[in-house]
Amino acid sequence: MTETIMEEKLNQLKQHLAEVADLQYTGALLGWDLQVNMPPGGSVGRSYQMSTIDSLAHKMFTSPEIGQLLDALQPQVEKLDPDSDEARLVKVTRREYEKRLRVPAEWVAEFAQITAQAHMVWQEARQDNDYGKFRPMLEKIFDLRRRYAELFAPYQHIYDPLIDDFEPGLKTADVKAIFNKLRPQQVALVKAITDRPQVDDSFLHLSYDEQKQWDFGVDVITRFGYDWKRGRQDRSAHPFTTHFGIDDVRITTRIFPNHMSSGLFSTMHEAGHALYEMGVDPSFGRSTLDSGVSLGFHESQSRMWENLVGRSLPFWTYFYPRLQEVFPEQLKNVTLRSFYKGINRVQPSLIRVEADEATYNLHIMLRLELEIALLEGQLSFKDLPEAWNSRVQEFLGLLPPNDAQGVLQDVHWSSGYIGYFSTYALGNLISAQLWDCIQVDLPDLNEQIRQGEFDGLRGWLVDKIHRHGAKFEPQEMMRNLTGSQIDPAAYMRYLTAKYTDIYSL
Amino acid sequence: MTETIMEEKLNQLKQHLAEVADLQYTGALLGWDLQVNMPPGGSVGRSYQMSTIDSLAHKMFTSPEIGQLLDALQPQVEKLDPDSDEARLVKVTRREYEKRLRVPAEWVAEFAQITAQAHMVWQEARQDNDYGKFRPMLEKIFDLRRRYAELFAPYQHIYDPLIDDFEPGLKTADVKAIFNKLRPQQVALVKAITDRPQVDDSFLHLSYDEQKQWDFGVDVITRFGYDWKRGRQDRSAHPFTTHFGIDDVRITTRIFPNHMSSGLFSTMHEAGHALYEMGVDPSFGRSTLDSGVSLGFHESQSRMWENLVGRSLPFWTYFYPRLQEVFPEQLKNVTLRSFYKGINRVQPSLIRVEADEATYNLHIMLRLELEIALLEGQLSFKDLPEAWNSRVQEFLGLLPPNDAQGVLQDVHWSSGYIGYFSTYALGNLISAQLWDCIQVDLPDLNEQIRQGEFDGLRGWLVDKIHRHGAKFEPQEMMRNLTGSQIDPAAYMRYLTAKYTDIYSL
Repeated sequence: MTETIMEEKLNQLKQHLAEVADLQYTGALLGWDLQVNMPPGGSVGRSYQMSTIDSLAHKMFTSPEIGQLLDALQPQVEKLDPDSDEARLVKVTRREYEKRLRVPAEWVAEFAQITAQAHMVWQEARQDNDYGKFRPMLEKIFDLRRRYAELFAPYQHIYDPLIDDFEPGLKTADVKAIFNKLRPQQVALVKAITDRPQVDDSFLHLSYDEQKQWDFGVDVITRFGYDWKRGRQDRSAHPFTTHFGIDDVRITTRIFPNHMSSGLFSTMHEAGHALYEMGVDPSFGRSTLDSGVSLGFHESQSRMWENLVGRSLPFWTYFYPRLQEVFPEQLKNVTLRSFYKGINRVQPSLIRVEADEATYNLHIMLRLELEIALLEGQLSFKDLPEAWNSRVQEFLGLLPPNDAQGVLQDVHWSSGYIGYFSTYALGNLISAQLWDCIQVDLPDLNEQIRQGEFDGLRGWLVDKIHRHGAKFEPQEMMRNLTGSQIDPAAYMRYLTAKYTDIYSL
Repeated sequence: MTETIMEEKLNQLKQHLAEVADLQYTGALLGWDLQVNMPPGGSVGRSYQMSTIDSLAHKMFTSPEIGQLLDALQPQVEKLDPDSDEARLVKVTRREYEKRLRVPAEWVAEFAQITAQAHMVWQEARQDNDYGKFRPMLEKIFDLRRRYAELFAPYQHIYDPLIDDFEPGLKTADVKAIFNKLRPQQVALVKAITDRPQVDDSFLHLSYDEQKQWDFGVDVITRFGYDWKRGRQDRSAHPFTTHFGIDDVRITTRIFPNHMSSGLFSTMHEAGHALYEMGVDPSFGRSTLDSGVSLGFHESQSRMWENLVGRSLPFWTYFYPRLQEVFPEQLKNVTLRSFYKGINRVQPSLIRVEADEATYNLHIMLRLELEIALLEGQLSFKDLPEAWNSRVQEFLGLLPPNDAQGVLQDVHWSSGYIGYFSTYALGNLISAQLWDCIQVDLPDLNEQIRQGEFDGLRGWLVDKIHRHGAKFEPQEMMRNLTGSQIDPAAYMRYLTAKYTDIYSL
């Protein structure tokens, strides 16, 4: 193949991928609108629309033309630098193509329709606090997911193909090894903290004007570098980030009048995701490279901005006087140090999304164990709530009073996201590993943050991570950046130092 | 073909049409979001998304499967009542299919992309008041439209295929005949009015709180029967109605602090469109019957609620005391009669969307003449602004000081809508013809409106018009309802009576 023909084939491939991407962005808009704007009457029609778009995207991506183009390009890109954009585009597309090719269009349509339906059933079940109502849907979804995994046989573990959708290349054994190392340390840390006198955070639960909370969050993420010309923030019941291309990356948040930190940290968290998408090389737009490395890496960015930046003392050294100006009544008698301790209060609780940094990963581990047990058939769906509750008691010392605060609390399973939860914990671990790296390259990082300056940090992230989009696999990216695999040591060092200070451990 | 096989074929057809409808609804959401939410950075990506979705919808609708199903069903439905849902579904789908089949996919993709680009160029040109900047795009669009019309040769007039997209079955000759009858009467009426002392409407231009304006409009259309569980209202630069199925029908409006009636009547207008969509038989959802008869019929509904209801004395007999309660400062010294006269003030003006009922149709006629002249090649694009201005002077006695207030004022041409404008005037005529009919069936209609009761009116419209969706052609519908064709007499009677009262003609 001459260079011109290769270029032509590559352009044909890109054109195909661009149309698939258009469908995916459009599907994302349908989802965004569903959560942000849609009147209740629209739900049935919307589930049809989402199913139709998903099916079409699947059909177009798995078309024989794409397979032929990939085959034709394969020997050519092997002559290129394996890290070149072209070689990686073909590699990532092939990985995705070969995975998707195994999945029948009927499965995709059924999955889209069942999950749309399950979402509504789950909402009702949670409202009525009735796991029994949701159980038939949950069984269907796990069954669909098991059938999906079986399409990828042989595998070491039936959970492997599911994880692979969210963390390309990662295996169940890897995740188990990481979590087995993490769990005793995390449990011991929580134990040590809860043995100490509790810190006060009652001032966070006074009455805070919602618009002022919103505006303060907007100011913070504007400083982070969130580009309002290429995004917007709305309210939704569950905060999330979505994008319809590199130049339209939207976030949502929720604001509680009596819980000031909740909306603010959720805004920072989603902005962390959004900065990742906004930082991807524009030439990757409308292709398989236009997104993050993996969900775990994505979460490392959101958790970094939310926690390593947003819950740090340097950050509040800059922002706390400003926050006091906005809420003088509520905060006049709260020192910076007390505020810092309050927003970092550790309190085992029932709800994952409200969990502090010390207990968060425990919520993840219990979900991981239950997902695996359900898939392996070791646990029946009937016994799930009990299994959930007994683990909450074991890990957190609490007993959920009902299913709404227990097994029904998360949206993920109703959306068919089995194998997703562990990426949250992996994100925490990755964020701390990256943070160690960044501090080597930017020795005055803390001083910059104390000045409210984030260009250095964002610049590093864009250069080392964001701009590369989905070119690399997560473990590969970690090795490139840190020289090691995903590992809990850095995160545990970070947590231990932080809480040793706050709780005088 | 047995009945079972026919049913099976019909279901296959419906399934195909449902998927096409899903794509069209999705395209409509892309458009709604573009105008309501999208950050500016999203515009390039959005034009790709819209083009991809349009092309796919076109491709799916013109697939050979649909042709084969239509052919197989044809002899069967000929045995049915020709007005049955099934016979009409096949008829309307065939008409649409045969039209679309003539249009190459390349034309559709080019049209979508050019119009997306033209929209941005037009916005800039209007802002910079520079017709020259827009002219190349306008020529491209007219050229595309001419190429489109030529696909339908032979025709009596090159404008016929364009009108047919918006008013199925209507011909250029019909429209010209209607307007030739209308124009002298309308011009004479305006002349008679402008010879009389002007009425005062200065109270409409005091300072009115925007939120209170919004809330009042919401109250009004809630009374009309707009169903908030199946819709929502947002702000946009140009008010419009769109739907993503029968159960998600959205409207937009705009509010000016110093022009109270503008936002209110725009809300009523769009609600009129929305009530039409909300009233379509639910079994027509996701099919070619799920919409109105034509744009003219659609406009008859919006203009009816806005003008025949919303600018009537009975309406304000009920609502004016309520409006005075909301804005006591501004309206305390304005009587009901003065208010009524103020909102019906006739004042020739340059901008179509701000035109009153007496001058509105004149704006339409000038556009119609220019579109035809451009298509016929009688007028060059270079001379368009001058031709525009001289007609404005002839029809309205005014001279546009610049192109932004002249030839660049409307969005339609940039969107490729050539042949669309006349539907606005037809809507006015139809609304008055229908109104005469309704008053025969509901002799106490005015009394109901005086009581703030609209169920009778809406019920009539749903029963006689809305629920039938797109089953009938506009002239056919008119004959069914009124026994006559579209004709200006009723509208001129309505206007003459109204202004004879207001201006003591």
